[in-house]
Amino acid sequence: MEIEKTNRMNALFEFYAALLTDKQMNYIELYYADDYSLAEIAEEFSVSRQAVYDNIKRTEKILEDYEMKLHMYSDYIVRNEIFEEIAERYKGDSFLEERLEILTSIDNRE
Amino acid sequence: MEIEKTNRMNALFEFYAALLTDKQMNYIELYYADDYSLAEIAEEFSVSRQAVYDNIKRTEKILEDYEMKLHMYSDYIVRNEIFEEIAERYKGDSFLEERLEILTSIDNRE
Repeated sequence: MEIEKTNRMNALFEFYAALLTDKQMNYIELYYADDYSLAEIAEEFSVSRQAVYDNIKRTEKILEDYEMKLHMYSDYIVRNEIFEEIAERYKGDSFLEERLEILTSIDNRE
Repeated sequence: MEIEKTNRMNALFEFYAALLTDKQMNYIELYYADDYSLAEIAEEFSVSRQAVYDNIKRTEKILEDYEMKLHMYSDYIVRNEIFEEIAERYKGDSFLEERLEILTSIDNRE
């Protein structure tokens, strides 16, 4: 599995998981976050490997579609770079450090 | 129409409009942003006033549901308050002012 795609899917999942069905959530999390194989997921849920594959491919499209429409992940990346620039330049400034901590925590959803 | 609800619906619409159908988008924008009456929208689209009303009520629920799941609007409010605090305290600091301008523009979608 390509590491780049895995990272992207895990990131999109973090932002948009709440919009997925339980099944979509389960399959894609096991596959990308927990590194299960298609066969393992199929066995776990007593469905065919093909059914798991189709579901995951569809969920990938759904996640990319949400990102295209809402761009929460790409906005997060831009914001985060700027927060890091500010943190670097104002090291030791407790007013800014406290606020950057809050700002960073807003985007770091569990 | 309550001003508070109107403001909230307009804000949620700004964040989640891309997830609505064209019809949902049209009706709710005419109603909340352009201040059309239900009767006016009904005439415009040659449908019943009740159909417009039902569609708008359903769209309001959809927008609130997206906000509950993604909280883009409430996150925006928290972030914006902090940006304003920083702007206030570091007035004249061009490094921060430039970055705050970028940060603010990310959230201010058209």
